[in-house]
Amino acid sequence: MDNFKISVCQLKPENNKETNIKKAEIMIREAKNNGSDIIVLPEMFNCPYDNKFFLDYSEEYPGYTTAWLSKLSSELGIYIIGGSIPELENGKLYNTSFSFNRKGELIGKHRKLHLFDIDIEDKIFFKESDTLSYGSKITVIDTEYGKIGIAICYDMRFPEYMRILALEGAKLIVVPAAFNTVTGPMHWNLLARARALDNQVYFVAASPARNIHSSYKAYGHSIIVDPFGNIINEANIEEGIISAKIDFDYVNKIRDELPLLKHRREDLYKISYK
Amino acid sequence: MDNFKISVCQLKPENNKETNIKKAEIMIREAKNNGSDIIVLPEMFNCPYDNKFFLDYSEEYPGYTTAWLSKLSSELGIYIIGGSIPELENGKLYNTSFSFNRKGELIGKHRKLHLFDIDIEDKIFFKESDTLSYGSKITVIDTEYGKIGIAICYDMRFPEYMRILALEGAKLIVVPAAFNTVTGPMHWNLLARARALDNQVYFVAASPARNIHSSYKAYGHSIIVDPFGNIINEANIEEGIISAKIDFDYVNKIRDELPLLKHRREDLYKISYK
Repeated sequence: MDNFKISVCQLKPENNKETNIKKAEIMIREAKNNGSDIIVLPEMFNCPYDNKFFLDYSEEYPGYTTAWLSKLSSELGIYIIGGSIPELENGKLYNTSFSFNRKGELIGKHRKLHLFDIDIEDKIFFKESDTLSYGSKITVIDTEYGKIGIAICYDMRFPEYMRILALEGAKLIVVPAAFNTVTGPMHWNLLARARALDNQVYFVAASPARNIHSSYKAYGHSIIVDPFGNIINEANIEEGIISAKIDFDYVNKIRDELPLLKHRREDLYKISYK
Repeated sequence: MDNFKISVCQLKPENNKETNIKKAEIMIREAKNNGSDIIVLPEMFNCPYDNKFFLDYSEEYPGYTTAWLSKLSSELGIYIIGGSIPELENGKLYNTSFSFNRKGELIGKHRKLHLFDIDIEDKIFFKESDTLSYGSKITVIDTEYGKIGIAICYDMRFPEYMRILALEGAKLIVVPAAFNTVTGPMHWNLLARARALDNQVYFVAASPARNIHSSYKAYGHSIIVDPFGNIINEANIEEGIISAKIDFDYVNKIRDELPLLKHRREDLYKISYK
């Protein structure tokens, strides 16, 4: 079976972890009722995206949020790609995405590989590496449909990592992400479309809704792109669910018609990775 | 000196080599009069883009077209990135771009690395590898302003090659290219903008104008993009010249504000190349 329905729950995180989880549960149940097989949450869905909150909201694995994700995916018999949360291990904080299968089993744990340190004159300053540590593993999860590559936000800026996910067999790349009101309008759609096109994969980026009371204003615009770079569905800045049918046979067709992955000149260049 | 003016001559190739060269010369002289320092011609500017013409129009180096390019760049005291032409060597045909400096000296010879073999159902079929051989070298040319990476058309579909050019020091990538009326509307702007953004380079793609009498209908829309992925100038489908000021200091500024090239995880992945 190569077809399934994917949904993104673009929720608006508040300054309360339990509120955020309750909100996520309502949206996930709604997406399940709409026939979704795989449900995706945004980056830092249980915590405001702000260095000063990451430690307070953090959990070790297994913990409160991951236990809830596991239980809910098992109860509903769905896959959940649980956006990301601040994870604590051995005194270090990570921006981590936990994924669960229909039985509630952990099938993926992705720690953000590239930390977001930006300083655009008069526009935006953020330095994630002040509080967070770097992940060190490439993450591809296995499902009954095929492989899905996982990245978090700034990871999607790096074509090398996106390519590695495709080379590892991903036909869909899922990215919990929180671009902002500066980088979002400039680069969000462009990157989502280019990653899909270059790697001939479906590309799903799941953003929080915009919270005008937050210090960091998320761009929103969760997006689903087909393997030719066409936008299938896109949210606005409000809370809401967007969905799409994903067809991995269509990925195969595109890869036959325009064999980009085959035409790579591996005799001239090669990406090596751990 | 980090500033210069670049121009693209979007000419419409006809079924006559001398006509095409005369046309190119008129456009190049006009671009020189407009103050251009570097002038770019399109892919296969002296030959219709069709497998059946490549051998007839081909030349060994040095030859008719390259001698003219050298002489003109020297006479006008400008750089010419001479689009591409069918090149013959030891019985093999290549799609080759020759670049000349202000003294008329050859400073770059790029043979297309990725050959365009496409078969999109009911839309477009082209198989360049039926007649052409593959290049085998990465091409970065040196100028008084800094380094410029060279690619030809389908080469720009491969993020690995684009990244290598940036890693080799290019702050501008120039791509003579002929997308068509199927792939152009879908992918031309998207790719040009994404390559510029990912590698934080200026990106210039030079297309032939559309010739409705040709078997292969070029997309046109020659384009110049800044290192944040913004389009500075774009042609339509007709013959004409587009220009832009290129500022390599701005490249440095962008690379400081959003240090993508520095943030690559070379401990996790690496592109190796010859």
